[in-house]
Amino acid sequence: DFLNALQEIIPAFGASTDDLERCRLYGIVDCGGQHKHIYKRTMLLAEQVKVSKGSPLVACLLEGPSGSGKSAMAASVGIGSDFPYVKIISAESMIGLSESSKCAKIVKVFEDAYKSPLSIVILDDIERLLEYVAIGPRFSNLISQTLLVLLKRLPPKGKKILVIGTTSEVSFLDSIGICDAFSVTYHVPTLKTEDAKKVLQQLRVFSEEDIDAAAEALNDMPIKKIYMVIEMAAQGEQGGGAEAVFSGKEKIKISHFYDCLQDIVRY
Amino acid sequence: DFLNALQEIIPAFGASTDDLERCRLYGIVDCGGQHKHIYKRTMLLAEQVKVSKGSPLVACLLEGPSGSGKSAMAASVGIGSDFPYVKIISAESMIGLSESSKCAKIVKVFEDAYKSPLSIVILDDIERLLEYVAIGPRFSNLISQTLLVLLKRLPPKGKKILVIGTTSEVSFLDSIGICDAFSVTYHVPTLKTEDAKKVLQQLRVFSEEDIDAAAEALNDMPIKKIYMVIEMAAQGEQGGGAEAVFSGKEKIKISHFYDCLQDIVRY
Amino acid sequence: DFLNALQEIIPAFGASTDDLERCRLYGIVDCGGQHKHIYKRTMLLAEQVKVSKGSPLVACLLEGPSGSGKSAMAASVGIGSDFPYVKIISAESMIGLSESSKCAKIVKVFEDAYKSPLSIVILDDIERLLEYVAIGPRFSNLISQTLLVLLKRLPPKGKKILVIGTTSEVSFLDSIGICDAFSVTYHVPTLKTEDAKKVLQQLRVFSEEDIDAAAEALNDMPIKKIYMVIEMAAQGEQGGGAEAVFSGKEKIKISHFYDCLQDIVRY
Amino acid sequence: DFLNALQEIIPAFGASTDDLERCRLYGIVDCGGQHKHIYKRTMLLAEQVKVSKGSPLVACLLEGPSGSGKSAMAASVGIGSDFPYVKIISAESMIGLSESSKCAKIVKVFEDAYKSPLSIVILDDIERLLEYVAIGPRFSNLISQTLLVLLKRLPPKGKKILVIGTTSEVSFLDSIGICDAFSVTYHVPTLKTEDAKKVLQQLRVFSEEDIDAAAEALNDMPIKKIYMVIEMAAQGEQGGGAEAVFSGKEKIKISHFYDCLQDIVRY
Amino acid sequence: DFLNALQEIIPAFGASTDDLERCRLYGIVDCGGQHKHIYKRTMLLAEQVKVSKGSPLVACLLEGPSGSGKSAMAASVGIGSDFPYVKIISAESMIGLSESSKCAKIVKVFEDAYKSPLSIVILDDIERLLEYVAIGPRFSNLISQTLLVLLKRLPPKGKKILVIGTTSEVSFLDSIGICDAFSVTYHVPTLKTEDAKKVLQQLRVFSEEDIDAAAEALNDMPIKKIYMVIEMAAQGEQGGGAEAVFSGKEKIKISHFYDCLQDIVRY
Amino acid sequence: DFLNALQEIIPAFGASTDDLERCRLYGIVDCGGQHKHIYKRTMLLAEQVKVSKGSPLVACLLEGPSGSGKSAMAASVGIGSDFPYVKIISAESMIGLSESSKCAKIVKVFEDAYKSPLSIVILDDIERLLEYVAIGPRFSNLISQTLLVLLKRLPPKGKKILVIGTTSEVSFLDSIGICDAFSVTYHVPTLKTEDAKKVLQQLRVFSEEDIDAAAEALNDMPIKKIYMVIEMAAQGEQGGGAEAVFSGKEKIKISHFYDCLQDIVRY
Ligand SMILES: Nc1ncnc2c1ncn2[C@@H]1O[C@H](COP(=O)(O)OP(=O)(O)OP(=O)(O)O)[C@@H](O)[C@H]1O
Ligand SMILES: Nc1ncnc2c1ncn2[C@@H]1O[C@H](COP(=O)(O)OP(=O)(O)OP(=O)(O)O)[C@@H](O)[C@H]1O
Ligand SMILES: Nc1ncnc2c1ncn2[C@@H]1O[C@H](COP(=O)(O)OP(=O)(O)OP(=O)(O)O)[C@@H](O)[C@H]1O
Ligand SMILES: Nc1ncnc2c1ncn2[C@@H]1O[C@H](COP(=O)(O)OP(=O)(O)OP(=O)(O)O)[C@@H](O)[C@H]1O
Ligand SMILES: Nc1ncnc2c1ncn2[C@@H]1O[C@H](COP(=O)(O)OP(=O)(O)OP(=O)(O)O)[C@@H](O)[C@H]1O
Ligand SMILES: Nc1ncnc2c1ncn2[C@@H]1O[C@H](COP(=O)(O)OP(=O)(O)OP(=O)(O)O)[C@@H](O)[C@H]1O
Ligand SMILES: [Mg+2]
Ligand SMILES: [Mg+2]
Ligand SMILES: [Mg+2]
Ligand SMILES: [Mg+2]
Ligand SMILES: [Mg+2]
Ligand SMILES: [Mg+2]
Repeated sequence: DFLNALQEIIPAFGASTDDLERCRLYGIVDCGGQHKHIYKRTMLLAEQVKVSKGSPLVACLLEGPSGSGKSAMAASVGIGSDFPYVKIISAESMIGLSESSKCAKIVKVFEDAYKSPLSIVILDDIERLLEYVAIGPRFSNLISQTLLVLLKRLPPKGKKILVIGTTSEVSFLDSIGICDAFSVTYHVPTLKTEDAKKVLQQLRVFSEEDIDAAAEALNDMPIKKIYMVIEMAAQGEQGGGAEAVFSGKEKIKISHFYDCLQDIVRY
Repeated sequence: DFLNALQEIIPAFGASTDDLERCRLYGIVDCGGQHKHIYKRTMLLAEQVKVSKGSPLVACLLEGPSGSGKSAMAASVGIGSDFPYVKIISAESMIGLSESSKCAKIVKVFEDAYKSPLSIVILDDIERLLEYVAIGPRFSNLISQTLLVLLKRLPPKGKKILVIGTTSEVSFLDSIGICDAFSVTYHVPTLKTEDAKKVLQQLRVFSEEDIDAAAEALNDMPIKKIYMVIEMAAQGEQGGGAEAVFSGKEKIKISHFYDCLQDIVRY
Repeated sequence: DFLNALQEIIPAFGASTDDLERCRLYGIVDCGGQHKHIYKRTMLLAEQVKVSKGSPLVACLLEGPSGSGKSAMAASVGIGSDFPYVKIISAESMIGLSESSKCAKIVKVFEDAYKSPLSIVILDDIERLLEYVAIGPRFSNLISQTLLVLLKRLPPKGKKILVIGTTSEVSFLDSIGICDAFSVTYHVPTLKTEDAKKVLQQLRVFSEEDIDAAAEALNDMPIKKIYMVIEMAAQGEQGGGAEAVFSGKEKIKISHFYDCLQDIVRY
Repeated sequence: DFLNALQEIIPAFGASTDDLERCRLYGIVDCGGQHKHIYKRTMLLAEQVKVSKGSPLVACLLEGPSGSGKSAMAASVGIGSDFPYVKIISAESMIGLSESSKCAKIVKVFEDAYKSPLSIVILDDIERLLEYVAIGPRFSNLISQTLLVLLKRLPPKGKKILVIGTTSEVSFLDSIGICDAFSVTYHVPTLKTEDAKKVLQQLRVFSEEDIDAAAEALNDMPIKKIYMVIEMAAQGEQGGGAEAVFSGKEKIKISHFYDCLQDIVRY
Repeated sequence: DFLNALQEIIPAFGASTDDLERCRLYGIVDCGGQHKHIYKRTMLLAEQVKVSKGSPLVACLLEGPSGSGKSAMAASVGIGSDFPYVKIISAESMIGLSESSKCAKIVKVFEDAYKSPLSIVILDDIERLLEYVAIGPRFSNLISQTLLVLLKRLPPKGKKILVIGTTSEVSFLDSIGICDAFSVTYHVPTLKTEDAKKVLQQLRVFSEEDIDAAAEALNDMPIKKIYMVIEMAAQGEQGGGAEAVFSGKEKIKISHFYDCLQDIVRY
Repeated sequence: DFLNALQEIIPAFGASTDDLERCRLYGIVDCGGQHKHIYKRTMLLAEQVKVSKGSPLVACLLEGPSGSGKSAMAASVGIGSDFPYVKIISAESMIGLSESSKCAKIVKVFEDAYKSPLSIVILDDIERLLEYVAIGPRFSNLISQTLLVLLKRLPPKGKKILVIGTTSEVSFLDSIGICDAFSVTYHVPTLKTEDAKKVLQQLRVFSEEDIDAAAEALNDMPIKKIYMVIEMAAQGEQGGGAEAVFSGKEKIKISHFYDCLQDIVRY
């Protein structure tokens, strides 16, 4: 069936483009049921676009807290699909450009996509594309109008397109009507204790007796912060301990781990 | 009489312009009494413009929730009328243009219309033409002033024009005085259970025993979302099922249909 | 005496300029006592400007609901007076111009007027000249300042000028101090039942027994909407009936008339 | 003594510049004690500037309701003084100019003034110079900053300058700190019944028995509106009566006078 | 010791630059203890800059009501110090310049100062440099950012600088963080009755028996207004009396003095 | 171990770049435990960046009151690390530049950093880089968007970077989402009595019996203000005493010290 096992696909990701790969620096570990469910559903949308005659344009939004793995998920779908055109639109490649240049770049990606029979366009970190800032709030209306039109404009006859957006500011996007322009929205969550435990088991940096306490302390953290605190803790109190930990020779001291967690949660 | 049966006209639509046709991608199915009533009344306005001497300019607004079929309705009137000049003004063809270029394009369409004895101009998605965003709110006053004047300016002697506007932000348009510039306003509604049932019966994707439950679940949905959820559900849980469903070999599983509906209503 | 009968003057209007005539598309019918009173008083102001030595500049504002006949009234005074220079300044002829170009055009009309011994300048739809929109509110301060100065600046020695403004946003104009710049302000009202009846009697589109009910239903409507609803109703339910009604062969069916009234009042 | 009788000076006004004269179109009539007091005091300030060594720059503000005679008063002081340089800065001569051009013009007048040993500069209608509008409020900060600096900057050694400002928006000027930049502020009032009576006696347009009633009705009106209502009333109900009234052959009918007053006070 | 008597220094002021001298048009009279204290302390700061190795940049703010003598004080310190570079930055010399030109001028003064081993820079009337207006409030953020950086940026090695700011809008400066950029802030007050009396005694324009009453009436006035009211009163009620008063032949009539005071306090 | 004693490193600082040295004008004295703790932890982050494979980008924010020693701390880490590329981005070197030029300069530093295998970039006084002012508030969204992207963008493969930000407006940075872009945040505090005492003991400007009282009075002061008040007090009441105090010949008089403290705390 279409959704062949997630695992098999992953090694193949390496064959894909650099931009997508950079979104998954640590590779992909199992982050729990909800992450898997969203991945599966989004892959189904890609299939729908492919086989359906009535949906030449489908748009899907991945929203959730910062660092929860939305961009990695979107990149994985892009890599996992067999669509000939997969492109990520990200603010990183548009630093310092004027609003209208950004618009032009965004439009260009869509027009390129219209030339391929099947495309995936990833609008990564939409609030950043919109130059959003909470105070005011301020944002580029030029870009938001462009997105609103692009998310509704049908591709030319015979062409099909899946748009995947990611955002950590879903209520802002909602307030400017961009959420409504997506047919489907999925919430990518932080990790619960049990999910965190799974991750820690894979990483093997804690001793058996500490792993439950560590997972408990990591409850409700996004995957990104979990990696950060582990790297900090691995140094040890006086530094110099990381190699020993990651090579498996030593384990992280749980008390120092708690210390580092403090710094992360905002000292 | 003037309003010959709706059915006869529809096949003839194919002879019309591409832009109008693109507004009715799925063709036209019977969406219930209110949709039919509005179509009839708007066609009567077209006749009024044609025969009257005192109303060289009539403006009519179609408002209603996103995806309820307003643009399709306006396009159908344009195609159904026998007016020599029918033009749709849409934000899709003006992406990235400056406010003043948009204004110039809009004015140009009207001036072209003034050259024809009988014209229909469709202002599609007026809030998008105005670059409206709810926060602020912001919008182009340059364009709104232009529309306010164009909606009041009489065509030259002997020329007649029907303007049809569509919007899903009627309260905003009201707040800037644009609603008052339209003589008549019709509300294009979502589909009620009975209307949804009619649509489902035409599509034949549910088994007889599921059709009532499905229609019930679709109560108060715009036609566009009904199509979307059916396409999603037709894939089946593991993908790959769409062809079988649409060719009539299989039916949609009602439980999976409910699942998909969840995603649509905002997971 | 100066104010010779209103009726006599009207036929002579045809000799005047096109712009003024376009403001009175249906000709002028008797709209009731208040309309007549305002016309008479405004004509007296024209006389005052003509004969007085101390009032080289008089400004008079006509305000009232949209479609109540303000522009037609102002045009009628312009046509009815025997002033050598009568000019209407309207947003219709300035679509798409920049604020400063509009200013320049407005100033130009006044400077032209200063060359004539006696002039009437009509500032039609002042809120539209100001690009006013209720949200914000926004408007062109450049233009409002220009009007404030022009409405106070005395013409050169020996020249005299009557300025007539029209607006349906009198409270806005008041809030920016433009009302104070007019010496006199008249309220042009909607039609009461009795006024509406008079109009209907002149048009002869209802049977004798329906005319009172129709007039009652039209209570408190501006003249423009009365014309619109009659044109709509004259088509008949199935269309095609207008000619018969306006040639006097048939009458409007009162029940269909009520239906049409619904659409107008905002369905 | 310095303040020779007001009357003697007046005939000499005709020898002065046009701009100043245009501020006093009807000549000057006696408007009551407060007007006279302010004139006298402002003339004393001119003398102070002339003889003092410590006050090379004095600034005086005349504020009061629209039409109360502030500009006429300032012009009279300018004409009445024997200063070699008297200049009025008014928005009338700057219509349509950009903020910075207006600034440049204002600065130019001051720099010209600095070349004369004794100058009077009249800043007429300061709120208009500032392009003030109550909504917002909006105004030109460029111009307000310029005035704030000019009102404080000392002229070069040996030069002396009196600045007279007029405004009907004193509370606005206060809120932006411009009032504080004037050493002295005088309130130019409307006319009380007794003042109005004096004016009516000079004009002789009412019969003896009506004059008290008329003056009573004019209580608390600015001088400008008094002139306007008298001109209106002089026409008579049917027009054509003005000449007879002003030549003294007829008197104004008090009942018609009341009617006209209605129009003025805002119908 | 360093702070040799204030008096001796004053005559030497005449040798200094014009700009500084213009700040003290009437020369310097003794305004009471607080004024003297501030002068002494600010002179000490100049010494600190000179001798210390750790404080190459010291910034001191003089704040107080308009006309209280802040600019005169700052100029006096500049003149009284023996620093080779003393420069006043004032809005007077920047009328009509754009924000960025003003910035450039300000920066230029500092860069010039960095070339001198010891400099004093006076930022006179900071709110005016910032184009501050209370409504909004509005001000130039470009200039405020420039000041914030300049007030913190250390001069090059071996160079030392004292910055003296003056303002009558200290709470505004505080709200934009400019006060914090000054290490020390002194409040320059209005004159109390006893201070005013001292000033009046030096001027000798009142008779002995009036001087206490006059001083009492001048309680809590800034020095500038005291001078203004005395000049006004010196003219006498009919004008022409100033010379006699200042030459000592006559005294000011206390009743007329009270009258003039009224005009000053806002009539 | 990695964090060899703080003391040893300090003398070596002199070998580093001028910009970093200028942040520590007085050299470094022991300011108490919290300062030391933060320094140690930040050095550990530098080590983490160096040895880890999973954290090519780490960002750390130092926040605290003005003058508490944040910039000095960041500079010390830069000097103390052995990273080949250490650069400070400060508003001082960008006075008067446009927003986009500032952006370009900031981006340039990061792109240069990407060329080095190991870099430290110090974003000094982030609120000043953002041209922040509390009223409004106003700030450069162009620059804040640039920082948000740069703080998230991974360096090219094999390159590693530590970003250290400093700010005294942490709640503002939080409100625009910039705090979230830093993995770790440390609060750099004012000095408590005991910390102040340590500093005073090192400086030896008070007699033994005064030192406790002086330290008590300096409780909760940032290190910068402590230095300022001591310099002021060292002059003595009449000036001229600084040299004697700093050479150790005399001590500061505690009463004069209290006086000076008054001026500093806002007189
Ligand atoms: N399933 C996963 N397994 C391992 N690492 C992951 C996984 N998902 C995400 N990551 C890593 O976690 C970090 C955060 O992921 P990602 O950038 O996708 O989060 P995000 O939700 O897009 O965050 P942001 O809102 O900041 O854009 C990345 O470094 C990514 O490589
Ligand atoms: N009567 C109909 N029969 C079949 N399909 C229809 C019908 N009306 C509309 N549709 C389809 O439903 C979708 C939504 O219709 P349409 O674009 O007209 O809605 P809308 O009200 O204009 O929405 P929006 O507010 O988003 O512009 C379109 O794909 C259109 O083809
Ligand atoms: N007395 C009249 N007799 C016949 N028709 C009239 C009369 N007055 C106005 N009309 C017609 O009614 C319509 C509305 O009149 P008009 O444009 O003068 O109204 P208005 O008050 O200026 O409206 P708006 O506020 O929209 O500018 C016009 O078509 C005009 O020709
Ligand atoms: N003392 C007077 N005698 C006769 N006419 C006067 C007198 N004072 C003013 N007027 C006339 O009254 C009118 C209004 O006077 P003026 O323009 O000076 O008023 P204003 O207070 O400046 O009004 P605004 O606030 O509108 O500028 C002018 O036409 C002026 O000629
Ligand atoms: N000690 C003094 N003796 C005599 N005259 C003084 C003295 N101090 C100030 N003045 C005079 O008083 C007037 C106001 O002083 P100054 O301009 O310094 O006040 P300011 O506080 O700077 O006012 P502003 O806030 O308006 O700038 C000036 O004309 C100045 O010459
Ligand atoms: N540990 C220390 N020993 C000696 N002097 C120090 C120390 N820390 C800071 N200073 C000095 O204190 C002053 C203030 O320090 P610094 O500029 O680092 O503070 P800051 O927190 O960055 O202030 P701001 O918020 O104003 O930027 C500087 O002159 C610096 O040289
Ligand atoms: Mg992301
Ligand atoms: Mg539509
Ligand atoms: Mg009109
Ligand atoms: Mg005036
Ligand atoms: Mg000053
Ligand atoms: Mg700092």
